[in-house]
Amino acid sequence: MIKTQTLKGFRDFLPIEAKKRQYVISALKQVFESYGFEPLETPALEYEEILLGKYGQEGDKLMYRFEDNGKRKVALRYDQSVPLARVIAQYQSELAMPFKRYQIQNVWRAENTQKGRYREFIQCDIDTVGASSPLADAEIIEIAISAFTKLGFKNFKVLINDRENLQFKTQGIALSQDKNILAVRSIDKLKKIGKESVIKELESNGFTKGEAEEILQITEKAKLTPRLAEVFSILKKLRISDSQYEFSSTLARALDYYTGIIFEIEAEKYTAGSLGGGGRYDNLIGLFADKSMPAVGFAFGFDRLMEAMEELNLFPANLQTTQVLVTIFSPELLEKSIKICEILNNRKINQELYIDPDAKMEKQLKYADKKQIPFAVIIGPDEAKNNEVTVKNLKTREQKTMKLDKLVASVFG
Amino acid sequence: MIKTQTLKGFRDFLPIEAKKRQYVISALKQVFESYGFEPLETPALEYEEILLGKYGQEGDKLMYRFEDNGKRKVALRYDQSVPLARVIAQYQSELAMPFKRYQIQNVWRAENTQKGRYREFIQCDIDTVGASSPLADAEIIEIAISAFTKLGFKNFKVLINDRENLQFKTQGIALSQDKNILAVRSIDKLKKIGKESVIKELESNGFTKGEAEEILQITEKAKLTPRLAEVFSILKKLRISDSQYEFSSTLARALDYYTGIIFEIEAEKYTAGSLGGGGRYDNLIGLFADKSMPAVGFAFGFDRLMEAMEELNLFPANLQTTQVLVTIFSPELLEKSIKICEILNNRKINQELYIDPDAKMEKQLKYADKKQIPFAVIIGPDEAKNNEVTVKNLKTREQKTMKLDKLVASVFG
Repeated sequence: MIKTQTLKGFRDFLPIEAKKRQYVISALKQVFESYGFEPLETPALEYEEILLGKYGQEGDKLMYRFEDNGKRKVALRYDQSVPLARVIAQYQSELAMPFKRYQIQNVWRAENTQKGRYREFIQCDIDTVGASSPLADAEIIEIAISAFTKLGFKNFKVLINDRENLQFKTQGIALSQDKNILAVRSIDKLKKIGKESVIKELESNGFTKGEAEEILQITEKAKLTPRLAEVFSILKKLRISDSQYEFSSTLARALDYYTGIIFEIEAEKYTAGSLGGGGRYDNLIGLFADKSMPAVGFAFGFDRLMEAMEELNLFPANLQTTQVLVTIFSPELLEKSIKICEILNNRKINQELYIDPDAKMEKQLKYADKKQIPFAVIIGPDEAKNNEVTVKNLKTREQKTMKLDKLVASVFG
Repeated sequence: MIKTQTLKGFRDFLPIEAKKRQYVISALKQVFESYGFEPLETPALEYEEILLGKYGQEGDKLMYRFEDNGKRKVALRYDQSVPLARVIAQYQSELAMPFKRYQIQNVWRAENTQKGRYREFIQCDIDTVGASSPLADAEIIEIAISAFTKLGFKNFKVLINDRENLQFKTQGIALSQDKNILAVRSIDKLKKIGKESVIKELESNGFTKGEAEEILQITEKAKLTPRLAEVFSILKKLRISDSQYEFSSTLARALDYYTGIIFEIEAEKYTAGSLGGGGRYDNLIGLFADKSMPAVGFAFGFDRLMEAMEELNLFPANLQTTQVLVTIFSPELLEKSIKICEILNNRKINQELYIDPDAKMEKQLKYADKKQIPFAVIIGPDEAKNNEVTVKNLKTREQKTMKLDKLVASVFG
């Protein structure tokens, strides 16, 4: 017998979990579409050369790559930004520009697995490509706030900074691009590891203690840039409550490709980390095209979002859409049960007919319990004779026998 | 510059196409859930040994297989039935049995690409596992009929047969299992290639002409089996119109694993082939478990379904959810446009604010056209001064200027 197991870092989603995921995805799609964002899907497999080198050495190492049966070198989707860049280059004339798209697909990364880190996981991105206006930045922030509100989050905040604030100079001289990237990556850890550790990390990366301290000082003293001031003024015009966003000079974001505004969302009672983030990246999308192309986007951290919603109890109590299990007392009474289904159906009450007329009543009720169906109806020989029906509330375990025509009103009214 | 291209047999879905796919998927899910079917998701990658040998030599050849970074032999999902069998074995105690699940995920097959055949495509399956009743068979047929009705198909029919009718005897002696499989595969082509060719194919597979003719005769003479009679009687009790299903003695289905009822759905005006099919397969699901497990299911042919809906014009005329593009006349008038968005939003009219206050009006209107947004509103200096708004119908190209408070009622009333 073959051992039944899934690969490390890969997950099955059984119905209860799968429904929760669908609930979140469907809420997010609704929000995205209400702002005119449209779906895009790209293939799971791409030519390796499309993806290679775009995510740095680390990415090349973590990518799932192989040779297909036709000896083509292929790789599994690693993120949704590079495929977006390819799509923009490939179909430019077909797309409405600015292109506002959302994309919710799996990506695969051969990461070291640890709590909350998987090798197959959903990415959930919104991006506006082809607009450099501060309005485009503001809209992305507005959508992120709408989405978290829609999902039931209360005390959350978008932290906002500008990469311009992280163009460091030491003793008046600008850092080289490479050194600046190293500095940004260390500053990004400030909240997590503290000043001392950031200085140590900068030192171990070749900065002197003096330079490291200056970098920290510059970061802490930074102010709203003119561009951020514009974005904040639009957010005000859009009537976004200013309790939902704030300038944070220490926000850095680890990704190298940001070129302007950056932001991250944090929920007060969820401390495991940010629930999503993004920013402006005006140089990435032009990668495959003959011209550069401004872009701004936000990526929802889907697995963390699921975890936070679980912890904060934000899922509806019961995602079971079936209200009633219609049991079958015995094969001869099948038609009576079908009749009940019809009555419920006509009143738009979701019902499910148990699928095996030979199963014991106990088994049928256990099935309803396991599926968290709130009610079961039973129609045995006595009920059938008297034109009655027995309704069992599976939570309270109470049951009541009543005339058939009272069923809908008395129990589900 | 890297050439931007997708792999042969792999597709990008740009917004218009992606929305159509979502429309179909969401309609199908609604139907499945209304019958108590619940979602299941399994990983894209599995240990190779879970999948290998389950789909025959052909399957092993067409499977995407490789070694991952940890030297594990892995394979991409090839269908959803084997993963379902694994899930049943792995989580039996957690699942409500009978297990009624739907699964809508991509699978990958290194097929020769040709019209309508892809290497990455969606499978869309419903299966009831753990119920051997004819009611379970009937329910699957009922759901298929509901789904096609919901999608707008009118003249379609479920053809039904029983594999029992395809247990052939020649001169009174039962065929060996292997020979019987060959015979079924040839009979499966009857409609497509005709009697003569089926006989020829059987002959080339080692049957004598006499045997071949006998097999054809047996097929054509076959009648409703007692089991099918039961299923038909339940379909009647379920009030399924008998114009929507019929017994077809020549229906064979090519897959080897069916053990009882088989069915296929055909739409009158779509002749490229069946739009889905399924049947009872009581031996497959027990593959990884210590006991056998009855099962019956239906697989929707997603790509054909999309093609048929296109040909039969069954998609809504406009899947664009945005009703109005709110243009921005100039940066100074941004707030006026935001005000319009608020008015529309309060009346639950989906609107989208154009994202670049510096863009020319022509560009903004072209954007609305390309996205098939029906209306655009313009609020220039004159309109702003007079508390008016101009509404442009993008289909008729007519435009009308009116007082702001007349906007909702006069145009979208």
